[in-house]
Amino acid sequence: MQPSGVITITTDFWHKGPFVGVMKGVILQRFRNAQVVDLTHEIPAQWPPEAGFWVRRSYQYFPPGTVHVAIVDPGVGTERDILIIEYDHHYFMAPDNGLLGRMLDHAEGALVFKLDFAALDRLNIPLPSNTFHGRDVFAPIAAELAAGKTTPVSIGVAADSWIPAWVDEPESRGDSVSGSVMTVDGFGNLISNIDAELIDGFEKPVVHVAGRDIPLLTTYGNVQPGEYLALVNSFGVVEVALAESNAAERLGVGRGAPVSVRPG
Amino acid sequence: MQPSGVITITTDFWHKGPFVGVMKGVILQRFRNAQVVDLTHEIPAQWPPEAGFWVRRSYQYFPPGTVHVAIVDPGVGTERDILIIEYDHHYFMAPDNGLLGRMLDHAEGALVFKLDFAALDRLNIPLPSNTFHGRDVFAPIAAELAAGKTTPVSIGVAADSWIPAWVDEPESRGDSVSGSVMTVDGFGNLISNIDAELIDGFEKPVVHVAGRDIPLLTTYGNVQPGEYLALVNSFGVVEVALAESNAAERLGVGRGAPVSVRPG
Amino acid sequence: MQPSGVITITTDFWHKGPFVGVMKGVILQRFRNAQVVDLTHEIPAQWPPEAGFWVRRSYQYFPPGTVHVAIVDPGVGTERDILIIEYDHHYFMAPDNGLLGRMLDHAEGALVFKLDFAALDRLNIPLPSNTFHGRDVFAPIAAELAAGKTTPVSIGVAADSWIPAWVDEPESRGDSVSGSVMTVDGFGNLISNIDAELIDGFEKPVVHVAGRDIPLLTTYGNVQPGEYLALVNSFGVVEVALAESNAAERLGVGRGAPVSVRPG
Repeated sequence: MQPSGVITITTDFWHKGPFVGVMKGVILQRFRNAQVVDLTHEIPAQWPPEAGFWVRRSYQYFPPGTVHVAIVDPGVGTERDILIIEYDHHYFMAPDNGLLGRMLDHAEGALVFKLDFAALDRLNIPLPSNTFHGRDVFAPIAAELAAGKTTPVSIGVAADSWIPAWVDEPESRGDSVSGSVMTVDGFGNLISNIDAELIDGFEKPVVHVAGRDIPLLTTYGNVQPGEYLALVNSFGVVEVALAESNAAERLGVGRGAPVSVRPG
Repeated sequence: MQPSGVITITTDFWHKGPFVGVMKGVILQRFRNAQVVDLTHEIPAQWPPEAGFWVRRSYQYFPPGTVHVAIVDPGVGTERDILIIEYDHHYFMAPDNGLLGRMLDHAEGALVFKLDFAALDRLNIPLPSNTFHGRDVFAPIAAELAAGKTTPVSIGVAADSWIPAWVDEPESRGDSVSGSVMTVDGFGNLISNIDAELIDGFEKPVVHVAGRDIPLLTTYGNVQPGEYLALVNSFGVVEVALAESNAAERLGVGRGAPVSVRPG
Repeated sequence: MQPSGVITITTDFWHKGPFVGVMKGVILQRFRNAQVVDLTHEIPAQWPPEAGFWVRRSYQYFPPGTVHVAIVDPGVGTERDILIIEYDHHYFMAPDNGLLGRMLDHAEGALVFKLDFAALDRLNIPLPSNTFHGRDVFAPIAAELAAGKTTPVSIGVAADSWIPAWVDEPESRGDSVSGSVMTVDGFGNLISNIDAELIDGFEKPVVHVAGRDIPLLTTYGNVQPGEYLALVNSFGVVEVALAESNAAERLGVGRGAPVSVRPG
């Protein structure tokens, strides 16, 4: 695989403190021409599923050969593994804690490795701290991968098992599909884990959430400001919105809330 | 116009989710050496005037040939147009919803185009989603413009009308100028739309806001911590501050509040 | 010193408005290949010590020859000086208001200069505004330093005094060390100013904060979720955490709270 020199970072560090900044510093120490892109740093603290959800649905918008680093890592400093994955012409790195579990369920042909910590020494990476592997392990290895100076197979051990995803897959039962809200965006839109293909045959689909039935339409402008609508969003999943307003606030629901879809 | 390779992005996406990140990914897919700068992503949801205010007052601090993309876009997926403007040695892209209306009122010599959606196909841009033109339309076109691979005239139709600005121009009446608060910054300073030149002849100007008369001085350090002051800020407009504290909170006003200035 | 072309920026501007963005624009106007990294922009308004704390503990993770710009600047537009420092193969710029005072206490061999404002003219930097030296002074000078087009000695006057740090050094008395919380990170961890070396000889150290005694362990995973622990964090200082939860909220303390450590 030809690296693109691009690295994305997804974390639950938010923006207070220099945590993401020093990761970028370490990357630039090893690879001055890296292009580092923040995917998001506002993953809810210690909640890997949301990071995995966004990485899985965003990676294909980056150049082939991009390294995607995702760090939501309550087990840092304990015996947990670090996964390094080559899939669909991209690299992925994350703690082995379920973060990339859902992606791996669907990642046919993925090559999965667990980092061999002995490789750190070979790459002249100093002994890591116990609490910040983002800076001490993920950043330097991402830099080496992005620069084409190492490969997953030369620093990892092939793996055929890993920690599974924390959130259940949506369930299709009869003519209804049940899933849940994975995240709420900055507009207050409720973004579910129900893929468009699961409701492909449904006529006039209706989305049920927070005790309401909401019609599935095409875009926000299909209703008047202040009216609810559902749609298949630009990442291919069912979303519930309140036109020009905040659905999450008004409905009083958020991450984890059950969502179902049935034909109308 | 010689492109600088720099692209700025201004949105109301805030930082939750990968929305700005994937725009950068799409840009890098087409133009690996782009320099992308975030202007701000904390525009109030669905409020184009603030985005236009900042783009208009910030663009000249970037290299000539920079592409400025601003997306506050409640009409995404409907029939609304996309403006592509060449003005003062910079490019600008925004939905035609008033966002750039105030800039265009003052932009003598601006070349204004409406995007010809048929051009997407010529640039090998896939059919856009209905809900995320930032990623699917603005990002790839900004990349092509910034890389010098296309020009506004070759992808747009010349336009001589557009949606006007949503906020009234400040009004000069006798020896008083009335405007409003356009935005509140991170310090709680109230930033108005009253340009310095409108109060040019005023002796000892006094700013009236939230029932108070506040003297126009030169900088924050001119008063004691905890005292109000007004000044012409570094973007050339009248601003009200509370030294080393938060004027917006203490005065209990924010965006849209009336502000007036008269000689003292 | 060979510049790396990398510039870090630390401010109390937060993310509302284009303030950091236009600084980057000015940098790119002068040095198109600069790599600009945000360290953090969420320093509490007008509180220089936290900016200095993070710059001092983060700079070494960047390539030698990096320019570190820190702006928390209540005195902007008054007679306050601007420090330009060469130390440990890095450049530092900040208002002379105590921000870098603690670093300078420990910076053996540092070369300290005060900016000669007459140098602005020689570098073709326009007359600065009174309220935004980040954009008008720091950004263009950082660009010139990072591009190797100027040096501290050619734009500054050697200085042997500066405003001292605002926060007291931790105090060792008998077998106890007393310091304070410098900042709270995005997880709610309390980060103190007590360096690991101050408690080097302590057996089974116990950290006292908010009326509680908390054992010093190695990493978050050493306790059960919901239990308190202290540790020496990845920046070399004592930190108090609540595993998989928010210590600051639960303990009801934050910046400035007294912290002490003694052997157990």
